[in-house]
Amino acid sequence: MAIPTKVEVTEVGPRDGIQAEPNFIPTEEKIRLVNALIDAGVPRIEFSSFVSPRAVPQLADVAEVLKGVDRTKGTVLSALVPNARGAIRAAEAGVDEIIVFMSASESHNLKNVNRTVEESLVGFEEVARIMGDAGIPVHGAIATAFGCPFEGEVPVEQLGRIAQRYIDMGFQGIGLGDTTGMATPPRVTKNVRHLRGIMGEVPLGLHFHNTRGIGLCNVMAGLDEGVTHYDASFAGLGGCPFVPKASGNICTEDLVFLLHEMGIETGIDLRKLMSIANEVEQVIGRDLPGQVMKAGLLSDLHPMEDVKTAVG
Amino acid sequence: MAIPTKVEVTEVGPRDGIQAEPNFIPTEEKIRLVNALIDAGVPRIEFSSFVSPRAVPQLADVAEVLKGVDRTKGTVLSALVPNARGAIRAAEAGVDEIIVFMSASESHNLKNVNRTVEESLVGFEEVARIMGDAGIPVHGAIATAFGCPFEGEVPVEQLGRIAQRYIDMGFQGIGLGDTTGMATPPRVTKNVRHLRGIMGEVPLGLHFHNTRGIGLCNVMAGLDEGVTHYDASFAGLGGCPFVPKASGNICTEDLVFLLHEMGIETGIDLRKLMSIANEVEQVIGRDLPGQVMKAGLLSDLHPMEDVKTAVG
Repeated sequence: MAIPTKVEVTEVGPRDGIQAEPNFIPTEEKIRLVNALIDAGVPRIEFSSFVSPRAVPQLADVAEVLKGVDRTKGTVLSALVPNARGAIRAAEAGVDEIIVFMSASESHNLKNVNRTVEESLVGFEEVARIMGDAGIPVHGAIATAFGCPFEGEVPVEQLGRIAQRYIDMGFQGIGLGDTTGMATPPRVTKNVRHLRGIMGEVPLGLHFHNTRGIGLCNVMAGLDEGVTHYDASFAGLGGCPFVPKASGNICTEDLVFLLHEMGIETGIDLRKLMSIANEVEQVIGRDLPGQVMKAGLLSDLHPMEDVKTAVG
Repeated sequence: MAIPTKVEVTEVGPRDGIQAEPNFIPTEEKIRLVNALIDAGVPRIEFSSFVSPRAVPQLADVAEVLKGVDRTKGTVLSALVPNARGAIRAAEAGVDEIIVFMSASESHNLKNVNRTVEESLVGFEEVARIMGDAGIPVHGAIATAFGCPFEGEVPVEQLGRIAQRYIDMGFQGIGLGDTTGMATPPRVTKNVRHLRGIMGEVPLGLHFHNTRGIGLCNVMAGLDEGVTHYDASFAGLGGCPFVPKASGNICTEDLVFLLHEMGIETGIDLRKLMSIANEVEQVIGRDLPGQVMKAGLLSDLHPMEDVKTAVG
């Protein structure tokens, strides 16, 4: 299979990155960053979450953020929704799209949302009804899709069962989440091939973490299978609850750099994205893992006098 | 082309990583690390360099390190050699193999070793004679093979001309060095395909940096072309003289993790390698970029009580 010529990158930093920060990021800073992403041509942004403000106080201002955001450019503004209560809030706020999520492994789902896999799926039926009435599309994420930190490898049949239920509920996109960085190229290939048979025309997205340094290798495996939707976080913001010092989400600028260098279009202005990443680093107040934001593009040549080179 | 089933990983941290450190690492620590690498089954180690001790004081103890190293296990102990004087010292010390190096771009070669490309090549003829007399194999590295920070893209024909001269001098291996992290998967594919036609049975090695976050993606591109020799540095030690905060060499543990997960043998005990990387971090005294050393292997599962998970 030929690799795609065009890919849709979803920026998840405002949700998946910021939710893990210890300090509250002011609403106006969040709005500024999301609007900068829209200006840079990012086609889809997971901009916040309608989870309980008690559970994730960092994202309690989700409705205010949406109000401040430029809706004129056609960027899809997507929010995470955990349950019917969140769905009602999301419909009232007028998001473009919601994402529901559950873990493929029973133990991680219990730990994360205190439900069995079946209880999550039943709950989503009510969410689907609410969003259907509001005319807002629903995407379904499957977390721990490439491995569970408690159980190990997750059977591909379990992913297939959940994907089938998502499709039966009319979800318009399905994402596989590598929640704790356990994806590998062979696992990506295997899962994508299995799901493709089930999903038909419903788009499949991949959400990788760089916890073990191979997040972008997993993207390469996805590209080899023709997958055209990838999540990433600006400056690589985000972490892993299991490994305090490890990386979290793959970095958007590094992903877009890779895609552009491979001749794959994203519609994103990478220079603008790099400047947003530098801004994120300032807002967050510490070094973040993104590399391209530090090293620049290949066309950023150096004057010879500038540099003391190393030998070898 | 099928990807290889077996790959030779060369650990370059003791040379390429340590040479850039501001503080001198005591000789006994270097010996301890190299012996630990040998014990972990690393088949080839670039353990130090016979450059001028004034130019690189960090590696002035190259002969002492070699004396302290376990030579009984068959590990190839390879050293960098810049010129005839270095070659004489390397032959006296009794290394298993030497590596000469030059940059493919005129400007970088001038800046790095103060010679034109042709002057470097002529100098290597004397080195080749010295090593031939000593019966020690010579490998040739081509730096800035995927791009020059002063000139930009390096024509593949230039790599071909240098590789041909290396082969004419009887070199037994040729390596392409991504000195400042400018390699991309398409550049890897292009260069490897061009050189394969010239090199015949002479092994081709690839030396990538992670300066722009895609070092292991470039390995994937190399594997797709059947390349079986890769350099990497323990814990990702090393840097880039052009970008103070950027990563340097790709990380050995992360590389070996990727290879093993892809079903590619290395003969290396990854657990031992991870523990060496943690030791390197202690010796160096700061956080290093390696990820697997922090996150552990996929089989390192967590007890459920251990962890507060994040939502989503």
